[in-house]
Amino acid sequence: MRDEGAPRAALKRERVRAYLLGLVDDRRPGDAIPSERTLCAALDVSRPTLRAAVDELVATGALVREHGRGMFVAPAKITQELVGDSAPAAVPRAPGTWSSRVLEFRRTAAGARIGRRLRLSPAADIFHVARLRLVDGGPVGLEYLHIPAGLVPDLTPGRMESGFYRYLRAERRIVAARAEQSIEPTVLSEAEAELLGAPVLSPALLFDRVTSDPDGRPVEYVRSLYRGDRYRILSRLSLGPAGDGRPAPDASREADWWGTVE
Amino acid sequence: MRDEGAPRAALKRERVRAYLLGLVDDRRPGDAIPSERTLCAALDVSRPTLRAAVDELVATGALVREHGRGMFVAPAKITQELVGDSAPAAVPRAPGTWSSRVLEFRRTAAGARIGRRLRLSPAADIFHVARLRLVDGGPVGLEYLHIPAGLVPDLTPGRMESGFYRYLRAERRIVAARAEQSIEPTVLSEAEAELLGAPVLSPALLFDRVTSDPDGRPVEYVRSLYRGDRYRILSRLSLGPAGDGRPAPDASREADWWGTVE
Repeated sequence: MRDEGAPRAALKRERVRAYLLGLVDDRRPGDAIPSERTLCAALDVSRPTLRAAVDELVATGALVREHGRGMFVAPAKITQELVGDSAPAAVPRAPGTWSSRVLEFRRTAAGARIGRRLRLSPAADIFHVARLRLVDGGPVGLEYLHIPAGLVPDLTPGRMESGFYRYLRAERRIVAARAEQSIEPTVLSEAEAELLGAPVLSPALLFDRVTSDPDGRPVEYVRSLYRGDRYRILSRLSLGPAGDGRPAPDASREADWWGTVE
Repeated sequence: MRDEGAPRAALKRERVRAYLLGLVDDRRPGDAIPSERTLCAALDVSRPTLRAAVDELVATGALVREHGRGMFVAPAKITQELVGDSAPAAVPRAPGTWSSRVLEFRRTAAGARIGRRLRLSPAADIFHVARLRLVDGGPVGLEYLHIPAGLVPDLTPGRMESGFYRYLRAERRIVAARAEQSIEPTVLSEAEAELLGAPVLSPALLFDRVTSDPDGRPVEYVRSLYRGDRYRILSRLSLGPAGDGRPAPDASREADWWGTVE
């Protein structure tokens, strides 16, 4: 039997969360928010209820808690826009300077699973590269790349730190033109958390991507893990044919437009 | 000082994870995978290392563990394609039958934060609706919708269960044409986990969306939480102008193409 208190508790949590997010909206990064005691009184909720909501907003990167000093609005997240087939010019540049640090670099056989992704024989050679991605020197993501060695026989760790796509284009005449990418939520393991400088079990986004050249030949297979408290995705969705903003005549498609809608 | 064992431990974890995902790839939903003991021997790792990797794949919905019976390939995830400005016809229909169950329905003042999202006065009335989203009767998501009451004065809980967009279009002549949506990872609180029938602290995707009509007027502001073990997002990305698949001439944009790329 379902506990009938669950909807109520979830709704109470959402109310506290919405109130806290309202405080964040009204302030700038680094500004203080009221104390736990003040908030409990204002919202008429218990300390544990408030704390659970704050914990969640700390984990998802809306608030930071500083021991003995109080709670503050967190720095703005790195917001990455997902781009569809049109209007590449609309991509805003993410703030901050990105860099990479190679953790592992080796040449090895693709194996069955990665070979399938890259459309190679399991015996074909690939480069396996693990690298940390940093923004303004702080780690935000961990990437595991698999690259057909036949495409890039002279690949070096240095090239994976100074612009892999630039190298592909300038020295190998290979253009990464398209990708198919899945996005799932996960939590950081102990080792991943340490590499990324985030708490164990923090929320993270897991990306799985195959990138291809204009002829559809796979150029890389990448799995990567991005800190949820530092990174989010923005997408703009439209039902109409490009340009006119009108909905498609086939109304039956409306229900599964962006999936969660009805 | 950084523990230099962290990269090694993270890489070992990735190796075990890749191996297990390979087993999943080679099988069908419901098929058994080898026992923990067999896998530890095959991979030459300790039981805790293997178990941590299995736990992660259970949490992210690749494997299911059945007490006393072993480990099995999980049912396929509901895969939702994110749609950009073009080619709406390419949207595949997500498998399964979606339905909704309203948990809360009330009319209230928008308040500052939601008013800002909906471009309404804080004093303007909105409908606040919490509903569970189900696929084939099983809960996959929890949605909190905020809808300007002026647009839908006759909204009822029943209409939120039988097709809100259809009601908007057919009875209110309002077309939801565009949306701006952010996606972040989070974990389920106790109450959310109970409503969604998932373990506490499981990974989940948090969506934040404002939907507008063709004139840009906000129609709804929605925050929703989707189970990470049942739901994932697929996006197809392209650098070139729509249609020709060639990269844009402005090569400087290439580095921040889909954000994590360099």
